Amino acid sequence: MNARVYVGERAVQALPLLDRGYAYGDGLFETLRAHRGQLPWWDAHWRRLSRGAARLRLPLPRPDYVRAEAERLLDGADAVLKLIVSRGAGGRGYAPPTDAPPTWLLSTHPLPPPAPAEGLRLRWCETRLATPSALAGLKHCNRLEQVLARAEWDAAEIHEGLMRDGEGAVVCATAANLFVLREGRWWTPRVDRCGVAGVCREQVLAILGEAAAETATLSQDALESADAVFLCNAVRGILPVARLGERVWPSHPAVGGLQRRLAESHPAFESAALPGSEVS
Amino acid sequence: MNARVYVGERAVQALPLLDRGYAYGDGLFETLRAHRGQLPWWDAHWRRLSRGAARLRLPLPRPDYVRAEAERLLDGADAVLKLIVSRGAGGRGYAPPTDAPPTWLLSTHPLPPPAPAEGLRLRWCETRLATPSALAGLKHCNRLEQVLARAEWDAAEIHEGLMRDGEGAVVCATAANLFVLREGRWWTPRVDRCGVAGVCREQVLAILGEAAAETATLSQDALESADAVFLCNAVRGILPVARLGERVWPSHPAVGGLQRRLAESHPAFESAALPGSEVS
Repeated sequence: MNARVYVGERAVQALPLLDRGYAYGDGLFETLRAHRGQLPWWDAHWRRLSRGAARLRLPLPRPDYVRAEAERLLDGADAVLKLIVSRGAGGRGYAPPTDAPPTWLLSTHPLPPPAPAEGLRLRWCETRLATPSALAGLKHCNRLEQVLARAEWDAAEIHEGLMRDGEGAVVCATAANLFVLREGRWWTPRVDRCGVAGVCREQVLAILGEAAAETATLSQDALESADAVFLCNAVRGILPVARLGERVWPSHPAVGGLQRRLAESHPAFESAALPGSEVS
Repeated sequence: MNARVYVGERAVQALPLLDRGYAYGDGLFETLRAHRGQLPWWDAHWRRLSRGAARLRLPLPRPDYVRAEAERLLDGADAVLKLIVSRGAGGRGYAPPTDAPPTWLLSTHPLPPPAPAEGLRLRWCETRLATPSALAGLKHCNRLEQVLARAEWDAAEIHEGLMRDGEGAVVCATAANLFVLREGRWWTPRVDRCGVAGVCREQVLAILGEAAAETATLSQDALESADAVFLCNAVRGILPVARLGERVWPSHPAVGGLQRRLAESHPAFESAALPGSEVS
């Protein structure tokens, strides 16, 4: 693990003690998959970060400088790169400072273990996502709901947990978005009341196009009766789901087809794109 | 401003770069009013912190050590003391580490300016509190909703903003709890779906007793037609409200009575307890 922290355009030795990121989670983050030190989805991540920063009125550092520093830290590696941008030091009180330069942290992390070839095993989480959230869609640093949900299990045979909102709608996994196949169309939960508009979700929606995919409120029944389910995030790409409690999904050729199309825009996901049929 | 950071029982030079407080807001905080270097409500703050730590399964440092360090940092001052406890460094990913010692930060801050003698002027915030929140009642470090709400105004003539949930129920101010007087009884919004169970709120409820005060869902109409309204927090005590938009409340003797009773347990609030009638 390498990490480096900056205030504005200046590398510093430590996080400011009164940084609002530490006090309030007043920041945004991106988690990127690096391939041989390069960041193929950089533009999509920066676009999402910029949208979040506009909503939070959070100043951002210059993207070309951040990217150069990130690639320098990666030094050619296959790794996970995490970027946190917080509102900087701002004294006590919720009123955001208007003149503080942002604090930002770059860190590199080992790749996660490969996904099991037979697909992921999921569980339902009891922790609910609150709605309507003023933060819906953002990859912000207020992540206690996810921390509580992920703390609900420690069995290694469970790979991820699915989260619902207070009304029972399925929203996401703790660290991934979700797609289901029903009657030949793909559906992914809306993220305008809670949840994160994931970069990989956005890539998959773009590949599928409006004719083949839709954003909707997704009930637990609609998920459990789907023909295929996968999770996705920008670190691991598309992850087929094999099991949720007693419900078992055999491998579906449409998922393999999507994995191959995703790998066209990010070579790190090529290994997941095994032979199979094209996306329906 | 003085600040000092610790990991477990050890003072350190800086926040850990991968601290989960910075990454996820994975922590709790307390804001205490110090009087001549002493912390009269310490026990109540630590009780609230312990309840939150139990719900988040967050390890806490030893209270006697924290208190001694806090009083050393205060060095006899009239000040605000802030304590943040976070889950420590835990790599990437939401799963909480089981063995990381907590990181904690003590900082002292100047007292806020005295409340205006004529009472506070409030506004409605548009930012809603999401429900049902798994974090309801906790003074946790996921405070972006409050940051967004507080950013809605910068006019100095507005002292605080009132927040509602998605269904329109009144919950709190951005940095204070709320009491209203209706038909001779005090009401304060429930905090079991969102909001913070404030230490000063708890003190006021104890003073009033169940015969004189009740926790309830509070509509905007019930607030605006109340006979008296005050805000309260552990830094400023009881703050009478004079105005909300066009609605004006004259000073009410019951509020002065409560201020005097509150000052019996915290001498810093004596100056607010001006002569007036007893609490009804």
